[in-house]
Amino acid sequence: MPGNVTQAVILAAGQGKRMGGSTPKPLLRVAGREILYRSLVLLRDLGIEKIVLVIHPRHRERFEEFLTENGFAAEFVFNEAPERGNGYSLHLARSAVDGRFLLLMGDHLYGEDFLREALRGEGLAVDPKPRYVDPDEATKVAIRDGRVTAIGKDLTDPDAYDTGCFVLGPEIFAVTEELAAAQMAIELSDVVCRARLPVHEVRGKFWTDVDTPADLHRARRLLVARAVKGTGDGIISRLINRKISTRISALVANRLTPWGATWLTFGIGVLAGALNAVSPAAAAVLYQVSSILDGVDGEIARASLRTSPFGGWVDSVLDRYVDIVYLTSLAAVHGFPAGFWPVVVGALLGSVLVSYTTERYRAAFGEDMYREVPALRFVPGKRDERIFLAMVLVLLGFVQELFWTLAILTHLRVLLTLFLGYRGNRR
Amino acid sequence: MPGNVTQAVILAAGQGKRMGGSTPKPLLRVAGREILYRSLVLLRDLGIEKIVLVIHPRHRERFEEFLTENGFAAEFVFNEAPERGNGYSLHLARSAVDGRFLLLMGDHLYGEDFLREALRGEGLAVDPKPRYVDPDEATKVAIRDGRVTAIGKDLTDPDAYDTGCFVLGPEIFAVTEELAAAQMAIELSDVVCRARLPVHEVRGKFWTDVDTPADLHRARRLLVARAVKGTGDGIISRLINRKISTRISALVANRLTPWGATWLTFGIGVLAGALNAVSPAAAAVLYQVSSILDGVDGEIARASLRTSPFGGWVDSVLDRYVDIVYLTSLAAVHGFPAGFWPVVVGALLGSVLVSYTTERYRAAFGEDMYREVPALRFVPGKRDERIFLAMVLVLLGFVQELFWTLAILTHLRVLLTLFLGYRGNRR
Repeated sequence: MPGNVTQAVILAAGQGKRMGGSTPKPLLRVAGREILYRSLVLLRDLGIEKIVLVIHPRHRERFEEFLTENGFAAEFVFNEAPERGNGYSLHLARSAVDGRFLLLMGDHLYGEDFLREALRGEGLAVDPKPRYVDPDEATKVAIRDGRVTAIGKDLTDPDAYDTGCFVLGPEIFAVTEELAAAQMAIELSDVVCRARLPVHEVRGKFWTDVDTPADLHRARRLLVARAVKGTGDGIISRLINRKISTRISALVANRLTPWGATWLTFGIGVLAGALNAVSPAAAAVLYQVSSILDGVDGEIARASLRTSPFGGWVDSVLDRYVDIVYLTSLAAVHGFPAGFWPVVVGALLGSVLVSYTTERYRAAFGEDMYREVPALRFVPGKRDERIFLAMVLVLLGFVQELFWTLAILTHLRVLLTLFLGYRGNRR
Repeated sequence: MPGNVTQAVILAAGQGKRMGGSTPKPLLRVAGREILYRSLVLLRDLGIEKIVLVIHPRHRERFEEFLTENGFAAEFVFNEAPERGNGYSLHLARSAVDGRFLLLMGDHLYGEDFLREALRGEGLAVDPKPRYVDPDEATKVAIRDGRVTAIGKDLTDPDAYDTGCFVLGPEIFAVTEELAAAQMAIELSDVVCRARLPVHEVRGKFWTDVDTPADLHRARRLLVARAVKGTGDGIISRLINRKISTRISALVANRLTPWGATWLTFGIGVLAGALNAVSPAAAAVLYQVSSILDGVDGEIARASLRTSPFGGWVDSVLDRYVDIVYLTSLAAVHGFPAGFWPVVVGALLGSVLVSYTTERYRAAFGEDMYREVPALRFVPGKRDERIFLAMVLVLLGFVQELFWTLAILTHLRVLLTLFLGYRGNRR
């Protein structure tokens, strides 16, 4: 491969007629972040130093605002005649790039792994089996001897699909020059065909495009679903909580910040504790609700590329306080005798120590314990499971049994965690 | 500097008459590890690939055992006439090295920072102000124009001190050749003088030598004192606990493993909890004893180069359990009414959460919070302070006040930790 690619052209002059509204498609928000924001963050992480944005001059101000707000830099190329097609947009970028460059569609969403893989190739990145787009709507490609022979939406029996991502050299501009002289509108597909571009297969990685409002919804759901971290999820999380929380996250991702979700969840958790004074049954249900919502901040943060170690840290400490407030108030309201309180203490401390033990492992080893010691995933006693158990036992009236169960279960889990850590460490 | 040094010669054929006993000096244990072990570990970490050991043939088996047991490799050079001096030992190593090499005395202890710095220079590493050796006993050096002009124990008004560490090239063997032909005994000082070696100043870093049994004691104390981690130490630790624990560590470092110390400390802590049933006063004192001993495992581990993230992890979880057992049993024995138990719960959870918050920070950021947010060091409520407070208040009979204080102090500390983390994160 002839050297690293350090510049990218993004075609953002499209008219986006099917979307309605006046916002250029690359500036539409999906799961809390503009499509273009996502691409620019990924390109920066992949070592792309220069960005060329081909836009319509009437959107200049919008794009300039967007870049300034988010601390990005880009060179504009103006296409005053978007009706001349995206091949013409590419043609206009010819004097802004020097040598090889990455070409992306401004209305496509890509995963980091996709772009990393695509940058290793040459020509058009194609996906033989796209998982995240509707094949009927996608642009199809026929390939022979590693080169494109035909391209279009109506191609039957295609070999692969056009991902809208290219690695090109300056020789492509000889082709666009020729086409621009000969015809009014040039589509990229014309350029691809005429140049008989080589293809580079990128299989099974995340990429999708946004053409219609329905696409926007679908893309949001995809991003949130990909944002589930999951390494510390218990069985209740996998079967119930995540199914609900990802739906909520997809709904609110454009409107709620991760911090908003963190504090809202904390508030509801504390409220559940206070509600014990009025109705332990309602409180137990609200506690489970807070457990479901607890996934939302992380999901939104990851889906909107806003994760921060600081956010995770605070969230984790707040979770401990929600558990303490809920269980202490439950025990206080229930009027246990003094002799039973050591069991309450055991249940509460065990709940905190389950988390303490795995987090302290990460502090010591710098690695997620669930990743390092996968067997730990199957040991019951995680927070989602404890909260669900609390709800069920409180609703059934077994409050004393709940504290006994927690006091035993959690400390057994800590013991097992130490043992698994010991075994993992020996290997 | 002409290339990296990747080979080292260690002179270990000395007779060590002043030590008594039959063990060669480099194989004497200081704070749980042989002097030679320490040098070999440091050299490995510094990229030295080849080790040449000059020894007396009668110690061959001892050295071979030592190397095998500890997984080191080295080439032996035998000096059957140690009375001919250490300059002669160096001379014998001439065919075992190729190009530049590091020369170390086998009975010297060096800090990693010392060796790293010494490897950057050329000739004899000298220290103008040694902090860890007795200047009266040390070998003195007179320097002019960056070269040694005189060397010896009795030099008056020396410019610096001989650290026993050299970076030499093969040309040194022309000098030893000449000396070996002319005289029977060659000391290194003869070689240094004759070669008019350049000097390289390494100032204030750790190095010391071991000539007498008293030196051995002093070296052990130095190593243990250097092994205090201290970033999370509270005022009680600094003023009281560390002063006692380092003395204990220095005493037991050759006999007790870090794991032995961890379990012993845990046992004494749990015993303190149980003792509450008999005598809360005695239990409180024993709890403080366990707090002092809590420093020993880490001190021994660091002093004997045996630290492991696994050991730190288990120790930390066990500390939490000691606190839980002690405080819960104290509360149970004291016969608090049910209405007071939420305060007990608050005190206990606060104690765990103080540690949870800083450890979870390290898990999230991969950095020690005390290093990142130094202001945190001055916030009261660390474990050593809580335990000392517990002892004092229990002895004075203020048990209820103890729980109130802990319940308020610890959670305030957690709140302040979150705030300091927030402020640190903004910067």
